[in-house]
Amino acid sequence: MKETHSPEACKESIGAVRDTLYVLSGKWKLPIIIALSAGPQRFKELQRALEDITPKVLSKELKELELNDFLIRKVYDTTPVTVEYELTPYSNSLNDIIVGLRNWGMQHRKRIMSKSRKTKLLTA
Amino acid sequence: MKETHSPEACKESIGAVRDTLYVLSGKWKLPIIIALSAGPQRFKELQRALEDITPKVLSKELKELELNDFLIRKVYDTTPVTVEYELTPYSNSLNDIIVGLRNWGMQHRKRIMSKSRKTKLLTA
Repeated sequence: MKETHSPEACKESIGAVRDTLYVLSGKWKLPIIIALSAGPQRFKELQRALEDITPKVLSKELKELELNDFLIRKVYDTTPVTVEYELTPYSNSLNDIIVGLRNWGMQHRKRIMSKSRKTKLLTA
Repeated sequence: MKETHSPEACKESIGAVRDTLYVLSGKWKLPIIIALSAGPQRFKELQRALEDITPKVLSKELKELELNDFLIRKVYDTTPVTVEYELTPYSNSLNDIIVGLRNWGMQHRKRIMSKSRKTKLLTA
């Protein structure tokens, strides 16, 4: 992070990262966006895709994502009414972040596994 | 996110992103790492750089960052003892994520400001 080394740049960087973390707060917003990247989904489908999320939390997170322009809630005039959640073009602006977090998670898991293998070999 | 469109890829992607969010949980870990990117710092210096963090939370976050290999706590045999926190080479693996979050935060702030300007013009 060469460009963030001066105190002013550090401060600006901390401010911008904190803004992003505030908008993406919690552990669910990005997983919901990834799940919707496969196409529009209904509430129950999303709940299934995310496995351990409660309906109350999913509902709250969807509202916050809608407020921040990441998704739209579409209501279809069927009987009964169908509701689907769909990503907006603005959600694409998060692609770099998502790819970065995904790649890091993959390498971190590999690192932990190779470390625990080494520990096992040493204590065997 | 073309490469995450199949249900299996989505699931793998969600898992990896959740792993990363788990390790980087909360709003302070990345700001602490950015603050330390300027060089090793003492507890009080870090507290000042981060402005509104409480000593209790800073202490907890530093311990978690140490456990995850992102920083080391160096104790110097001075009178009184000097303690400094220093980034490890592994913390560099977070650079892409930090740059991504910072850039996104900057563009998001600009977007919100231009939106509120437009609203003001419309209602003026």
